[in-house]
Amino acid sequence: MQEKLPRSAIHRRALISSLALLPILHKLIPSGPASAQTATLNAALPSWNDGPAKQAILDFVRATIDRASPKFVPPEERIATFDQDGTLWVEHPIYSQVVYCLDRVPAVVEKNPKLKNVEPFKTVLSGNREAIAKLTLPDLEKILVATLTGMSVEEFNAEAKKWLTTAKDPRWKRPYTDLIYQPMLEVMQYLRGNGFKTYIVTGGGQDFVRVYSQRVYSIPAEQVVGTAGGTKFGYKDGKPFLTKEPKLLLNDDKAGKPEGIHLMIGQPPHAAFGNSDGDRQMLEYTGAGDGARLMMLVMHDDAKREYAYGPAQGLPASKVGAFSQALYDEAKKKDWTVISMKNDWKKIFSFE
Amino acid sequence: MQEKLPRSAIHRRALISSLALLPILHKLIPSGPASAQTATLNAALPSWNDGPAKQAILDFVRATIDRASPKFVPPEERIATFDQDGTLWVEHPIYSQVVYCLDRVPAVVEKNPKLKNVEPFKTVLSGNREAIAKLTLPDLEKILVATLTGMSVEEFNAEAKKWLTTAKDPRWKRPYTDLIYQPMLEVMQYLRGNGFKTYIVTGGGQDFVRVYSQRVYSIPAEQVVGTAGGTKFGYKDGKPFLTKEPKLLLNDDKAGKPEGIHLMIGQPPHAAFGNSDGDRQMLEYTGAGDGARLMMLVMHDDAKREYAYGPAQGLPASKVGAFSQALYDEAKKKDWTVISMKNDWKKIFSFE
Repeated sequence: MQEKLPRSAIHRRALISSLALLPILHKLIPSGPASAQTATLNAALPSWNDGPAKQAILDFVRATIDRASPKFVPPEERIATFDQDGTLWVEHPIYSQVVYCLDRVPAVVEKNPKLKNVEPFKTVLSGNREAIAKLTLPDLEKILVATLTGMSVEEFNAEAKKWLTTAKDPRWKRPYTDLIYQPMLEVMQYLRGNGFKTYIVTGGGQDFVRVYSQRVYSIPAEQVVGTAGGTKFGYKDGKPFLTKEPKLLLNDDKAGKPEGIHLMIGQPPHAAFGNSDGDRQMLEYTGAGDGARLMMLVMHDDAKREYAYGPAQGLPASKVGAFSQALYDEAKKKDWTVISMKNDWKKIFSFE
Repeated sequence: MQEKLPRSAIHRRALISSLALLPILHKLIPSGPASAQTATLNAALPSWNDGPAKQAILDFVRATIDRASPKFVPPEERIATFDQDGTLWVEHPIYSQVVYCLDRVPAVVEKNPKLKNVEPFKTVLSGNREAIAKLTLPDLEKILVATLTGMSVEEFNAEAKKWLTTAKDPRWKRPYTDLIYQPMLEVMQYLRGNGFKTYIVTGGGQDFVRVYSQRVYSIPAEQVVGTAGGTKFGYKDGKPFLTKEPKLLLNDDKAGKPEGIHLMIGQPPHAAFGNSDGDRQMLEYTGAGDGARLMMLVMHDDAKREYAYGPAQGLPASKVGAFSQALYDEAKKKDWTVISMKNDWKKIFSFE
């Protein structure tokens, strides 16, 4: 089913180590031949082509870890945040977590058979692609609530884990967690190797991403900030457990991203990476602080190796991961770095 | 003013709702003379008397870090959570954060003069101790909302920081952040030295505790889970900032503690420390998991060096930090360890 859903079905994001890469090694190298330093730095980001994007990352790290630099950042303030969908892994033509929710509908209906003839579940069960593609936002919200809440945290984790090992992206015929951008893994490793804490700050479900964050990104559960629902503490046979409730605590998108960062991290990041209008406020919040700040946007301009959508295409922004012309203009005005997947990345996926 | 407020003013916690100590060293020591190992372990908790409480901590760490032990805990699951008020620092006769809020009332009224003749602000301004002591819970909630919200995060941080450097506890004539229990600092250091992440999980305000957590406990802001309000992202002169809103996101007390742990950490702790009925669910949640688990309750039974209240005194539980007989009985039944401040701690404060 997930193979057929056109992008138009999904309306907006709101829906839903370590290579220890040569840590600070160049600090130990006496400021000798520039070529030696350059070699060390190049080794850090092997999947990146030389250019302004790669250089911006190297310059930022160099300035923040050098105690003699006016832009030195003490280790406890070295926070870097990464959007996930479209920034760390493929989001096109549909968010993987939405595929998960649609795939879970049959199991939900089996448990609660009266939903069989109730919309939008009836449409999802029909397998009618056109009809599924036309589901409205409130329809999709009903599906998310039904498939992501009402079970224990342990049950949810087990189901999500199972799905992740079996479901495959229709284009690459691989598990969704294979479709991680290798250059971004290298940025995260490079930052961690230089004392940064790397966080995912995603509009996707916090509990969903936490299921695979350690394995896929080397990011522990507590460093995943996402759209989060409430849980309810209770007992079963005297044993305490938490039930996932249909109550939204944090809508971690747009203005919700800096708000979520404050709630979960408690201080603004020094570096932030995104790819869409949903990341604008996070990048603005990051850029508002003093000292060294790195704001980067991944631009999807490589239809051959991945997808092309957004302002550089001269096309209207896609409904998934919308990167508007206004955001592009703001980035240029504020000296944020726009990463061209086509030009800046030697390879996109580790399996290439 | 804060010197005079009797304990009866405060009704319940819900209100506010490296030494790198010889890390794993004993693993490197061949299992030779037991006395050498004992010496190493004793060095870890110098302010603790030998006894079952100290032994429980040492046994727990030994089992969890030993790869050959059936109770080995992988580093990414080494989470330990600590209540704050009454577990890490003095809570008697009144929570320090409530003193902060009362102390802030004059400044709030100065900014908003019409509050001058409005209750409960009028009573607080009067300085009439008896009247202040009789403020109701809704009165106190109004004071908390007025003094903790409606300003930017930066303004709040600056105010709280200033207060912490000037306000003093009336009994010890020292800043509140001096009144940290030295033995608990040693437990946190010992756990961190053995790969555990130490978290504060407090009914107190998350933003308040984060102001001093790094300095006082060596715990970074992101490892403080507390009662948290929402913030609102906005702009001032084009620069983004967050305003603290009077909207409760997490009441981090009782059942809210495991719920907060799930939200902020994403997995149950292997060790949890508390001192009151507000910590019961956190300890139950910790104990529900498999393998090595350590649940400890600090009992205030030392009127001479600190305070005595709770079940061991044969007194009714204090309204601050209530440790009920039922909790005491549950601890005994479930083999949780009750720490006697009088018998288990050589010293209470670092300045002794």
